[in-house]
Amino acid sequence: MDRLGRRSLDWIDDAVVLVDQTRLPGSYETLRIDAVADLVTAIKRLSVRGAPAIGVAGAFGVALAVRHHGSAGNDFDAAVAALRGARPTAVNLARMVDRVVAVAPAGFERALAEAMKIRDEEIVASLAMGELGADLVAELTGDAPVAVMTVCNTGGLATVERGTALAVIQTLHERGRLREALALETRPLLQGARLTTWELARMNAPHRLIVDAAGPFLLARGAADVVLTGADRIAANGDTANKIGTYSLALGAARAGVPFVVIAPETTVDMATASGGDIDIEDRGSAEVVSLAGVDIAPPGTAAGNPAFDVTPADLITAIVTDRRVIRPDRGETLDMIPLGTPAEGIGRADRRERKHR
Amino acid sequence: MDRLGRRSLDWIDDAVVLVDQTRLPGSYETLRIDAVADLVTAIKRLSVRGAPAIGVAGAFGVALAVRHHGSAGNDFDAAVAALRGARPTAVNLARMVDRVVAVAPAGFERALAEAMKIRDEEIVASLAMGELGADLVAELTGDAPVAVMTVCNTGGLATVERGTALAVIQTLHERGRLREALALETRPLLQGARLTTWELARMNAPHRLIVDAAGPFLLARGAADVVLTGADRIAANGDTANKIGTYSLALGAARAGVPFVVIAPETTVDMATASGGDIDIEDRGSAEVVSLAGVDIAPPGTAAGNPAFDVTPADLITAIVTDRRVIRPDRGETLDMIPLGTPAEGIGRADRRERKHR
Repeated sequence: MDRLGRRSLDWIDDAVVLVDQTRLPGSYETLRIDAVADLVTAIKRLSVRGAPAIGVAGAFGVALAVRHHGSAGNDFDAAVAALRGARPTAVNLARMVDRVVAVAPAGFERALAEAMKIRDEEIVASLAMGELGADLVAELTGDAPVAVMTVCNTGGLATVERGTALAVIQTLHERGRLREALALETRPLLQGARLTTWELARMNAPHRLIVDAAGPFLLARGAADVVLTGADRIAANGDTANKIGTYSLALGAARAGVPFVVIAPETTVDMATASGGDIDIEDRGSAEVVSLAGVDIAPPGTAAGNPAFDVTPADLITAIVTDRRVIRPDRGETLDMIPLGTPAEGIGRADRRERKHR
Repeated sequence: MDRLGRRSLDWIDDAVVLVDQTRLPGSYETLRIDAVADLVTAIKRLSVRGAPAIGVAGAFGVALAVRHHGSAGNDFDAAVAALRGARPTAVNLARMVDRVVAVAPAGFERALAEAMKIRDEEIVASLAMGELGADLVAELTGDAPVAVMTVCNTGGLATVERGTALAVIQTLHERGRLREALALETRPLLQGARLTTWELARMNAPHRLIVDAAGPFLLARGAADVVLTGADRIAANGDTANKIGTYSLALGAARAGVPFVVIAPETTVDMATASGGDIDIEDRGSAEVVSLAGVDIAPPGTAAGNPAFDVTPADLITAIVTDRRVIRPDRGETLDMIPLGTPAEGIGRADRRERKHR
């Protein structure tokens, strides 16, 4: 694996090093980046992806900007603007960029330290989400091993380590509670087929791949006990933006009476956005849809609609699990009703539960 | 186009000639088939596909069987069994095969005449479905040009000419009533991306391609006024088996309040199947899912679930349009309540309506 270990990105030898996820699963390659423009390109072309990982990348990006341009002036401002705008739907990209910008006047070392702190917070958050989410799945489904369905890639590749929804699957697997994971392939960019299956295989978890359109029907036929998804942005009313296809899974889960659980770090919650209708949905253009790996799958010149995300209304969501709390929209709970714990408390709670079970 | 013209298959110079749909849209090639085993293979590998086209192919197949084996004996029985079993979900394959088998004792010429009659009936049926469906869309959505969403390929390629759901789109276009057609790509085999876009381009209809998972969300955002799909089998209670992804579009349409209309020939109605739960869903294996257009998209050895069809419950269906009647489940109508008209009456009714509008 090299010095990244199981991390998707890190700061190594004075540069950002990240797994080039566009090359998986065919080949595992890392990119070493020390120019902000290259980092913006890496985010835009999805070499690094997943809201938490993008946030950490943006944080390191500001450190790079400070090193090259100082902490003020047109070049610095332009670099920061480019980082903030690299992925408009991911709210915590802008938020993490802003956190490092706030300390940038104290210089490169301070900016880098803040970015490192953000990285470490993400690692702790993933552990906490895994524990809280696995506890919730046990509460919702009982003691038998479960089949779970998930979309896109929400694993260590999407964060720094372990992930969000896939962290829950990993924790279930480590507890001996995972019967099978059903991964949606996630067209157009196939993060589920390429990345989630790769991570599930790496953790030796039983799994099958399915096309996106099969998800709702397999839920109707009882193939999964729970749906676990990530989130790119959670609005104040609980409406959740996530990879295109999430909404149709939520419709299928609601119709089948299967719990639908969103797992995302607290940084994804955006109380400034009132509801899903206020979320700007990025259209990524025709090219991703009409060809794959250089192979045309539609007649030349075919135009495509390509919304990268969709919005799942809160009334279709059973529970939202963050690193610091569990909110139950199915019981009428809203984000403003549930106080924040700390990630460490979440992990501690799970540890106590585990000890009790032993 | 050659002697097939705009037909997907026909009987030409003592053999079945059909468009090899696995080669579209990259290249237009025809297969000339005079052995039953080759025809079974062509059905299984989807060189010919779409319930009505498969039914006509099966009918010609029995004529081939009679020519090679006579109309009785082990070889004939084996050929008929192979034809009937080539696509288990398509009810009218078995039905059309049986129609020709019934006249086979009268010899090859009689069997071929019956197959030709089946072909001609399909052509008339497509015309009638286009007219009845376009009339219904006007009734449901009003006079402004409409955006329609559709899945899989239900055009001339899926029948003999014009099609089922796509016949309605073609008729709307010919009447100047089509604003845009949104075609789902239809993974795993991409019939929407490869074939529907090709047919829409050939008829100069405005269209865009979308990934399957985008359908329900784009309905939520108001991108289409009506969903039009085909059917492989309609059970007695109105539950409808169709290409995987149809069910999730129906869920999305119901949530968005968009009419969901199934268009299929009367031969697709199977009153012997009580409900969708009784329909056997074919799993086509991993290979189609783990590679796309010949490119591996998942790690080697990845297992896939691959249900080829799903079942849409009747309560999600606004209307069922056949070549002989319109049934409105949204008004509590069931198949046994609505008498059959004739296809010619359907076309005649539309002609009168057209004259009135001029």
